[in-house]
Amino acid sequence: MKSVRVFAPASVGNIGPGFDVLGMALAGMGDTVLATRRSEPGVSIIEITGDRGRLSYKADENTAGISAQTVLDHLGCREGISLTLHKGVPGTGLGSSAASAVAAAYAVNLLFGEKLSKAELVPLAAVAESQVSRGFFLDNIGPSMMGGVTWNNPFTKEVVSLGRLEKAIVIVAIPDFPLLTKESRRVLPGMIPMEHFISNMAYASMMAWAVAKKDVTRFGRSIQDRVAEAARAPLIKGFEDVKKAALSAGALGCSISGAGASIFAVSDDPKKAEKIGKAMEKAFQGHQVVAEIRNTQMDRLGARMIK
Amino acid sequence: MKSVRVFAPASVGNIGPGFDVLGMALAGMGDTVLATRRSEPGVSIIEITGDRGRLSYKADENTAGISAQTVLDHLGCREGISLTLHKGVPGTGLGSSAASAVAAAYAVNLLFGEKLSKAELVPLAAVAESQVSRGFFLDNIGPSMMGGVTWNNPFTKEVVSLGRLEKAIVIVAIPDFPLLTKESRRVLPGMIPMEHFISNMAYASMMAWAVAKKDVTRFGRSIQDRVAEAARAPLIKGFEDVKKAALSAGALGCSISGAGASIFAVSDDPKKAEKIGKAMEKAFQGHQVVAEIRNTQMDRLGARMIK
Repeated sequence: MKSVRVFAPASVGNIGPGFDVLGMALAGMGDTVLATRRSEPGVSIIEITGDRGRLSYKADENTAGISAQTVLDHLGCREGISLTLHKGVPGTGLGSSAASAVAAAYAVNLLFGEKLSKAELVPLAAVAESQVSRGFFLDNIGPSMMGGVTWNNPFTKEVVSLGRLEKAIVIVAIPDFPLLTKESRRVLPGMIPMEHFISNMAYASMMAWAVAKKDVTRFGRSIQDRVAEAARAPLIKGFEDVKKAALSAGALGCSISGAGASIFAVSDDPKKAEKIGKAMEKAFQGHQVVAEIRNTQMDRLGARMIK
Repeated sequence: MKSVRVFAPASVGNIGPGFDVLGMALAGMGDTVLATRRSEPGVSIIEITGDRGRLSYKADENTAGISAQTVLDHLGCREGISLTLHKGVPGTGLGSSAASAVAAAYAVNLLFGEKLSKAELVPLAAVAESQVSRGFFLDNIGPSMMGGVTWNNPFTKEVVSLGRLEKAIVIVAIPDFPLLTKESRRVLPGMIPMEHFISNMAYASMMAWAVAKKDVTRFGRSIQDRVAEAARAPLIKGFEDVKKAALSAGALGCSISGAGASIFAVSDDPKKAEKIGKAMEKAFQGHQVVAEIRNTQMDRLGARMIK
């Protein structure tokens, strides 16, 4: 195989209560990498589309480039690759940098003998995320690689695929302003009141159990975050109103997607989901924010080769 | 039905990371209540055995008595009952007061038409616990009532049965000194460092998922508590050595049972479990503490009528 095209989905980090631990992959949006072997070592980025000219072509400044190089190094390859990257993750807070890193890592592994499992690729892809955001986060890398809902332990770096809720509908509202992950982490508290710890731990536990049991209602109702959401809400114009609108329209739960600024809600009913999306859009409009609404589901496969 | 005998099992609160949220019922130890209807209203306690004379015969000072009265009031009964109580929960930290409350609540419900479900009885039985320990805790009441592993939300009072791991072996070391729940709660921190929150939340989530998946190994390895254990360990003479001994002997995990002083470990292998129990006993001996060792499993049924 000389060339391969790989897709990796967007994702929602935290899923509310599971800060830095839980994440879910989203169907129908993600990044595509076309990777081609070449004899010279190293990684070169030939083309980037869909980023509105924002991303660097320097391989060591782009998560796809860093990730590809990390896997090449890990495999001890003397050859190199060239990459073309198509960005298809809309807005911030949807695991955009993770999707690029995952797609590139998965592509390089395919091109050079498929020696690593997805679980083994996760920490390698995470190196790119850590160089860009200065933290070692797996709650976007995990689901983007594996699909469905994943759990990870930030201390041991272990990642586990918890399963997928086929019937969950995820409504994503993507406002037209950016939010830097760095800023979004700066506002987090260093200490958590005991009762906020208990609350988040309880809801995250129920969420993980609900995934195993395919219980969409309990999954959605477990989107209750008293740790990160309160700190980050002021960074997202209109957040409280958008959340209120989603819940009033029948969402099972609603919170900030990862570090924001995107907001996600969950429903078990396609008709309600339409209504929820419209309510969220309108609530953002009330704050002079244009938001794109996407109704989607959980991605099933994570990173995969495509035609 | 004029008279009924009910058994309610002992339990392990927290199960390590799940402070105030997760709990599991233990097979082969628990309290038995014999409840008999009588025409006069109110509750009288006729006999208490197995408590070495420590418990009050006043119905409003004993969790069985308070719980029975709470259910009678809830049902609007004009009749009353008399109780005999046999305590069979060894040591502290094993949900002894919860087992009495659960057995009495379940018995009264049976005697007066079985109008309430187990889930409905849980908050009623919890009233007794709260009057004795001044907090509304469900992580012993829940499993004692329902068996297996339960989850509860301390804020909404909801209780959910997560399932049962038939193959888990629970080794309990019960030291011969008491520990007051009140004291054990006093030492808890009011604020939790962010990384301790993340760690406990991650392990509690994995534990709940592992119960759904019947994965004893992941369940046992999720017994990792950075919130309550560190604060309470100094109250339990020899704790660090007992835990070390259990893990060295092959336990998947080991922590304080509820508020202590009992310590529990989990294994998936009956032979290893014997070794683990002996190692824990010996480690306690090294601190001049006599400890009783019990090798058991998860209780299957929770509160039930017995002959």
